[in-house]
Amino acid sequence: MDKERDFSDGKKTALTKLEKARNEDMVDEKILPILDIINQSEKFYTSSSCAGRIVLLELPSIGDKKNAEFLGKWHRNIEPSEIISASTKAKTGQLWLLAQSPIIHITAKTNLDAEGMLKTAISSGFKNSGLKSLGRKIVIEVCSTERLDAPVGKNGRLFCNEDYLHLLVEIANDVIDRSNLKLDRLTNELKKKI
Amino acid sequence: MDKERDFSDGKKTALTKLEKARNEDMVDEKILPILDIINQSEKFYTSSSCAGRIVLLELPSIGDKKNAEFLGKWHRNIEPSEIISASTKAKTGQLWLLAQSPIIHITAKTNLDAEGMLKTAISSGFKNSGLKSLGRKIVIEVCSTERLDAPVGKNGRLFCNEDYLHLLVEIANDVIDRSNLKLDRLTNELKKKI
Repeated sequence: MDKERDFSDGKKTALTKLEKARNEDMVDEKILPILDIINQSEKFYTSSSCAGRIVLLELPSIGDKKNAEFLGKWHRNIEPSEIISASTKAKTGQLWLLAQSPIIHITAKTNLDAEGMLKTAISSGFKNSGLKSLGRKIVIEVCSTERLDAPVGKNGRLFCNEDYLHLLVEIANDVIDRSNLKLDRLTNELKKKI
Repeated sequence: MDKERDFSDGKKTALTKLEKARNEDMVDEKILPILDIINQSEKFYTSSSCAGRIVLLELPSIGDKKNAEFLGKWHRNIEPSEIISASTKAKTGQLWLLAQSPIIHITAKTNLDAEGMLKTAISSGFKNSGLKSLGRKIVIEVCSTERLDAPVGKNGRLFCNEDYLHLLVEIANDVIDRSNLKLDRLTNELKKKI
């Protein structure tokens, strides 16, 4: 009973937050259709999610992701010149170029619902998906394996030559393209199943 | 009942496989103590696991991880010269340097056991852990967020200059060092709880 109330209270809060973010243009448009499909079901609701992105990050010290600064963030394909331009803001620490595939957090009403959603996500190509918590709150993280995590410079200076930068951007763009295809596949699967 | 028999049959098969791998020196020594602690519990058993490693990989085409070839594999800190030496075996496709933190697969007897194990893993620093399947077989994947996934060359040629290669190796070694610390923490936590 408590668990059911937790779920419906949680869903109300999450949807209000999503609505606010949507009105402020803070949600990536590409992810909205899929969030809407999931939230229409009485068995699930979504929380923090991202459609996939390319990021240029400055880390003050190794592994210090908490104090990382975003020098550039793109939810689309990019050009090498955009990295060079964003890197001029760099000061101290390591510079990393990341390409991240989509991530969707979904709370499920029951273990059985979670099991079904996990299977759908994995069979739609989101092979790195898993349940992040069980028990009172059941949370599924839908995510994929494609990614790039490459250091590209240190203390304000890019280390890459032109060839290398082109290779990195080609790979980062490929992560974004594959992300879009996988989101389409998941959207179609969910339309059938939810 | 069926589920219980599945669990005990699965555990027998997994332990036989682990014993065989151990006799053939196919298991990384650093991971053995933790596998033994988990397997001593009647609630869990382990399957494919790795203590963390540095890998030089050749991918024939983008994302084609199935046909990837391992040019070098190390479960320890490395020197830049080892990458250069391993890269001489490269032929066609992209060269990637990966550093992977530990990954442990654990089958649990019940959802409640899985929930407890997941909490212990996350609180010991394995923040990327999750349940990969629920239902008849309950599998927890214990893993961490530190990693390096960097392309370093193409068609037999390394793209990195000396500075960059040193930075990559420094980061890869840092992933291994952090992996060792986290494995120690998890070992201590599990000793208390199992």
